[in-house]
Amino acid sequence: MFQVNENYAKLPGSYLFATIGRKVKAYQEAHPEKKIIRLGIGDVTQPLAPAIVTAMQEAAGEMGQAETFHGYPDYEGFAFLREAIVAGDYRARGVDIGMDEIFVNDGAKCDSADLGDIFSLRNKVAVCDPVYPVYVDSNALVGRSGDWLNDEGRWSNLIYMPCTAENGFAPEFPQEQPDMIYLCFPNNPTGATVTKDRLQEWVDYARKIGAVIIYDAAYEAYISEPDVPHTIYECEGAKECAIEMRSFSKNAGFTGVRLGFTVVPRELKCGDVSLNQLWLKHQEIKFNGVSYVIQKAGAAVYSPEGRAQTQEQVAYYMNNARVIREGLSAAGYTVSGGVNAPYIWLRTPKGMSSWEFFDYLLETANVVGTPGSGFGPHGEGYLRLTAFGSYENTLAAIERIKKL
Amino acid sequence: MFQVNENYAKLPGSYLFATIGRKVKAYQEAHPEKKIIRLGIGDVTQPLAPAIVTAMQEAAGEMGQAETFHGYPDYEGFAFLREAIVAGDYRARGVDIGMDEIFVNDGAKCDSADLGDIFSLRNKVAVCDPVYPVYVDSNALVGRSGDWLNDEGRWSNLIYMPCTAENGFAPEFPQEQPDMIYLCFPNNPTGATVTKDRLQEWVDYARKIGAVIIYDAAYEAYISEPDVPHTIYECEGAKECAIEMRSFSKNAGFTGVRLGFTVVPRELKCGDVSLNQLWLKHQEIKFNGVSYVIQKAGAAVYSPEGRAQTQEQVAYYMNNARVIREGLSAAGYTVSGGVNAPYIWLRTPKGMSSWEFFDYLLETANVVGTPGSGFGPHGEGYLRLTAFGSYENTLAAIERIKKL
Repeated sequence: MFQVNENYAKLPGSYLFATIGRKVKAYQEAHPEKKIIRLGIGDVTQPLAPAIVTAMQEAAGEMGQAETFHGYPDYEGFAFLREAIVAGDYRARGVDIGMDEIFVNDGAKCDSADLGDIFSLRNKVAVCDPVYPVYVDSNALVGRSGDWLNDEGRWSNLIYMPCTAENGFAPEFPQEQPDMIYLCFPNNPTGATVTKDRLQEWVDYARKIGAVIIYDAAYEAYISEPDVPHTIYECEGAKECAIEMRSFSKNAGFTGVRLGFTVVPRELKCGDVSLNQLWLKHQEIKFNGVSYVIQKAGAAVYSPEGRAQTQEQVAYYMNNARVIREGLSAAGYTVSGGVNAPYIWLRTPKGMSSWEFFDYLLETANVVGTPGSGFGPHGEGYLRLTAFGSYENTLAAIERIKKL
Repeated sequence: MFQVNENYAKLPGSYLFATIGRKVKAYQEAHPEKKIIRLGIGDVTQPLAPAIVTAMQEAAGEMGQAETFHGYPDYEGFAFLREAIVAGDYRARGVDIGMDEIFVNDGAKCDSADLGDIFSLRNKVAVCDPVYPVYVDSNALVGRSGDWLNDEGRWSNLIYMPCTAENGFAPEFPQEQPDMIYLCFPNNPTGATVTKDRLQEWVDYARKIGAVIIYDAAYEAYISEPDVPHTIYECEGAKECAIEMRSFSKNAGFTGVRLGFTVVPRELKCGDVSLNQLWLKHQEIKFNGVSYVIQKAGAAVYSPEGRAQTQEQVAYYMNNARVIREGLSAAGYTVSGGVNAPYIWLRTPKGMSSWEFFDYLLETANVVGTPGSGFGPHGEGYLRLTAFGSYENTLAAIERIKKL
């Protein structure tokens, strides 16, 4: 008799955003007349830039002609896209990354979850707390997170690195020694960042203890202040200890297009074993590349027109972030984030729990946030708001919250 | 110090098709004047049908307008595509499958590999021999296949079900009892099929011993004979024991588009645990849906125009299959397959091994096949040819082989 993976039964509940989706749907069905404003899930609302639409339409046309048809894509991604990435995201910042270190994927979430596949199940994992749930849940599914301790609201075998108001929502080195460290800057969910000097300390720490850093830079495009690193490879020695994940979802509005990439440097090794070669093997066995049409859309992001148009979108969302930050501050709320990131991290008022405040906002203001406790124990007492709504909706949502 | 997944080191070599790609590339670079004809990897060559191109271009246009923009897709796939699948692939054949049993993916290969995630590592796996390598390798990466026994050319913990000329390349029930059974009909690589009665026996067997069947029906569109089942759910009780995987790669030329789907029936349970719900949880945690534009392309396959145009492509490839089968038979080769499948399974001549014949064909006829031994020990002594080339190339390749 077949058995199922016993780790699924350990998961405490549904995936956070799926739970929110179901709650909002239930509320909307019960109150069809209410106009709900969603500042919860980090989904963009602006349409794709014209240069990207044109590129996709042309690519679709090419797929309809025998001379320009493309079959199975390369496992690593088409050369034209990897070249654009190397030039636009790395060489332009003085960082030397080779084409064969880039692995194109169908959205950073998949690789966030799948990168664990190439590591030993015995590795000890450290995560920020609060944290993007995919890192935790994907490790839980293979048993690496240990058991769920319901009373404590945490996994038994994870190292949690608290990110609190006291440390500016940037973690300190953990007391217990980790083998794998997930870091995300600019941070989801808190919107916090670290300086280049501080990130260099993390790289030095990882090299000293022999840990690998899995660095999520999905929100890099939102960095507005100097001295905030755009890639971990700005730090010396990072190619020997860090994998970097990037996404087109937030810098170019690709949440519904599905494109991202992962950098696995050649210098990153475990003894004689090259992690770059392990990941290539993983992709050859378990993946079959990304649609030609979608990769052409990605390349268009790096064209002069695409760049100008997508930067305009980022500026639009960052104006929303300012509206949220300033509006809620003026109304007496305690907020952080929203300067180098599209996320605002909001202290719940009157001692409400995260889910109490979520329900309260949904029911009284018809505004959807994301409960901070869904991101980890130290997220309790916070709510995440995103700047990805329309300007009009963002303004309306803040006005509604102000009136509560 | 972090460690890597020790199962990677057990893999005997590179992924089969990656190895072939490197061999062909090396030969072409050494002989730039030679015109190589590729009948190896199962990649299509006909351009996308006009109805599909138009659907993609329209969908890309919609993504460029605020009113019709789509952000994160549903984890399970858009309703419009799942409705088309339910109606076109199941209801039309009298099979009752619900929309919530369909999970859209970015190509069947990913799910072929990932479905193992929801099962216990202690399950014993049975595979056909020869077999599509992804089933074996993806189980090997998590340790379920055991150790690679190099002298025997097989994994220590897999149950191999020989598919030979004697049994018409359709496996018999294994002597050792399996928990998970991978079946693929029409078969890759042999092109063999089973009758509906025989598939019913497999379903009955699986239910009797409490095994789950993972059924790969990627080549369903190539079935030309009556009494060959188009879906395993034509068999009674299959919804209680079988997951079915389907692909758009071969019926609509989507190898470069990336779209497929998996059916996980509600009735499929392990004790109280619904595998449908486990797989939904898996997708929520590890996946973020398929591009809107690509799902619109998939829906166009079910439109009257799309259906007519793609059926024409299938007929085109099946004519190639006939050319290969009849041409090689006439030249004295022993061939099978190619009637209900785009694959021809060719006995190597003069006692050559599969790789010897591969090298011989590449070097003397500049034709690329796939060595049967790459699909498992009982593939030794065979070569797989595919019907996915152009008619002209297929004809030329057979002429070259005839002259050897």
